[in-house]
Amino acid sequence: MTFGRGIRAPRHTTHAARRHHREFHVALIVQKYGGSSVADAESIKRVAKRIVDTRRQGHDVVVAVSAMGDTTDELLDLAGQVAPIPAPRELDMLLSSGERIAMALLAMAIHSMGFEARSFTGSQAGMITDATHGAARIVDVTPVRLREALDEGAIVIVAGFQGFNRDTRDITTLGRGGSDTTAVALAAALHADVCEIYSDVDGIFTADPRVVPKARKLDRVSSEEMLEMAANGAKVLYIRAVEYARRHGVLIHARSTFSSAEGTYVLGEGMQVPDAEEGETMEEPIVAGVATDQSQAKITIIGVPDVPGKAAEIFKLVARTGANVDMIVQNVSAAATGRTDISFTLPKADAPTALRALAADQADVGFESLVHDDQIGKLSVVGAGMRTHSGVSATLFEALSVSGINIEMISTSEIRISVVVRGDDLAEAARVVHTAYGLDGEVDATVYAGTGR
Amino acid sequence: MTFGRGIRAPRHTTHAARRHHREFHVALIVQKYGGSSVADAESIKRVAKRIVDTRRQGHDVVVAVSAMGDTTDELLDLAGQVAPIPAPRELDMLLSSGERIAMALLAMAIHSMGFEARSFTGSQAGMITDATHGAARIVDVTPVRLREALDEGAIVIVAGFQGFNRDTRDITTLGRGGSDTTAVALAAALHADVCEIYSDVDGIFTADPRVVPKARKLDRVSSEEMLEMAANGAKVLYIRAVEYARRHGVLIHARSTFSSAEGTYVLGEGMQVPDAEEGETMEEPIVAGVATDQSQAKITIIGVPDVPGKAAEIFKLVARTGANVDMIVQNVSAAATGRTDISFTLPKADAPTALRALAADQADVGFESLVHDDQIGKLSVVGAGMRTHSGVSATLFEALSVSGINIEMISTSEIRISVVVRGDDLAEAARVVHTAYGLDGEVDATVYAGTGR
Repeated sequence: MTFGRGIRAPRHTTHAARRHHREFHVALIVQKYGGSSVADAESIKRVAKRIVDTRRQGHDVVVAVSAMGDTTDELLDLAGQVAPIPAPRELDMLLSSGERIAMALLAMAIHSMGFEARSFTGSQAGMITDATHGAARIVDVTPVRLREALDEGAIVIVAGFQGFNRDTRDITTLGRGGSDTTAVALAAALHADVCEIYSDVDGIFTADPRVVPKARKLDRVSSEEMLEMAANGAKVLYIRAVEYARRHGVLIHARSTFSSAEGTYVLGEGMQVPDAEEGETMEEPIVAGVATDQSQAKITIIGVPDVPGKAAEIFKLVARTGANVDMIVQNVSAAATGRTDISFTLPKADAPTALRALAADQADVGFESLVHDDQIGKLSVVGAGMRTHSGVSATLFEALSVSGINIEMISTSEIRISVVVRGDDLAEAARVVHTAYGLDGEVDATVYAGTGR
Repeated sequence: MTFGRGIRAPRHTTHAARRHHREFHVALIVQKYGGSSVADAESIKRVAKRIVDTRRQGHDVVVAVSAMGDTTDELLDLAGQVAPIPAPRELDMLLSSGERIAMALLAMAIHSMGFEARSFTGSQAGMITDATHGAARIVDVTPVRLREALDEGAIVIVAGFQGFNRDTRDITTLGRGGSDTTAVALAAALHADVCEIYSDVDGIFTADPRVVPKARKLDRVSSEEMLEMAANGAKVLYIRAVEYARRHGVLIHARSTFSSAEGTYVLGEGMQVPDAEEGETMEEPIVAGVATDQSQAKITIIGVPDVPGKAAEIFKLVARTGANVDMIVQNVSAAATGRTDISFTLPKADAPTALRALAADQADVGFESLVHDDQIGKLSVVGAGMRTHSGVSATLFEALSVSGINIEMISTSEIRISVVVRGDDLAEAARVVHTAYGLDGEVDATVYAGTGR
């Protein structure tokens, strides 16, 4: 059963090379289940069955699991009751217990189905991080105990979201999306064949099906497209996990806990979908998907003196408030006044602080007034094909124009075009753009009910 | 603040010698809080304040804490829902998360009061056990990290009830009363001045105040008396913790979370209550207390052939069922028949299995019939003074006789006399015996509401 583990292809080889190996060795599959997949005893048993089914197919399985349902929120609530600002080290100690509960229950459930299963905490699994409590970065993964357990034929269950720091010997947590990152990091360290990220949706869609009912599930998406989509509002995968996967050559398969259908493969450079025909050319669509984001606000600074260094002065000021500025547009200067307007977007929650900071420095900066607008929507069209195809932006502008939707801001990257429209227009904009790029499926997508994490 | 730690008296010196040191060093106090003391955010804050008060007095403090309120039962319930017989390794992993939650919250609460506090899991605290999941024995304590934290001026919080095994590197739990044992083991390893076991009762009483309203709190009790009382129904301290304390020379102080009054000191050989006058003679009462136990059943085997080896045959049979036999009485043989009756007591829960085993071997053993009686009560009088005073048993028998209470079985140890009476008579028996030994206090004891664990 463990034949071939020692000669598993190192991670820098291409996926095609690995596929050649696959005929001679058992696959190693890493699976990640989020909190809603293990919300209660029944769900845990369902997930256990799914894991056992994978094992029965002859594969080695390593599972990263999140805390059950609302456990993390409940623990945060308790922390808030005993301390207004909980000590970060202790908060990590507290929160890390959530995944331990879930992983022990999952291992028990598998065990009672007649399969050997062993659970490991982040530190037991060798998930070594820096010492930043609450948002630790993984610096090394030393999965010695996991390999031993796999070699002994056990299914391995690992607590997601947590690690430990070697210097302080303290437990850390990885922050938002931490369990996805745990799974990808384990897949990289163990040279897994695939990292399956389970949630309650079927995969990555060409658009959010709640907004665009004709959205289609993608069979595959490139990791660079996935990163742009995630950064611009798509919620199925966390950016950090996708980045880690791309950097370490991990094949991600985003799929549903509730279906055995294939989901979406997120392909890094040189990767191929497993069992694809050798040399099969991937029919690359120009546009992979349409992402929507209604979580941003727009601030416009009116009457900024149009002199060198003003923009730098303004955005240094905003950066100091911790605000995460996204799009920036500067209007053409009005020759008569020597003044211009600068607009930028940022998360709605960051807007009040940024506004206060700007207002406080109004005299120094010398602008005339501030306009705050939290009724905007951002629409992004993402596609690696944009690099080699022209006319992509024209299609976007044309579709919006025909529907009478006004564009307030535009920004582009190599493989993305984003526009800001009125928030009320966002859904309509997404639908017409989705149709214009030929992305519509034939049937309405199933209801898209959250992210499963 | 840490002056003197290095020269703290080794544990084999007498307490008097340690007292001499106390004038020159800060005391190190280990405190244990049970689940009912940390049942919710309010209780945790109350306990935190108590710990901070101890620290403010200038002492170093190490705290062992149990899981909050019913957490352990809730986790056991979840385990039962996912697996009929949970894998022991995983059950320990699951249950150990309960103390982690409590300890992290407690550390946060202390932290927010302006004091440095650090929580440590069983393995971080160096609580090394054998590999018996669910009932691990402590084999070594290596509190390196705790010493470091103390030296840095922090209050140390340790998860009770848990340890880890060096060979399997797995997390273990210590079983019933585990957090008491954790506290005592920490006190021994750190050469603490005292181990304070907090619960919701004021200390050790001369009898269970729910049964004997005139029971008095004892200021001190010897560890051998405490062991006999605990083994015979007293519930404030666990036998295992008292045994550990006696073996390692740890001074236990059983006291209430809800009062700052002194509780009861449990004194091992050569120990003295802190701040007692040098050379003060301890007024040793002949009888320390009266313990009651209504958890046993009695089985009588009638018509056993009175030949050598019969008793051995019977009790080997019973032992094989795992039953924990307590008292055994064999009647004088009836000369005419050459047969005798043998009675023994055992926990009510063990009786059905023992009865089945005996009935199955009736022909081989050759007895006539079995009588099962689960309406008995056991009363024990415990006192180290029995060794040197005569007439102690006469007082007991006289008191019961005057009250018309029939004695069904008698057994004695060096410092204990136990009798079995009708269960309905037990409370009355305890009251008259308590009075007969001059143990009655002047006022009714406060209501004795559980054990705080």
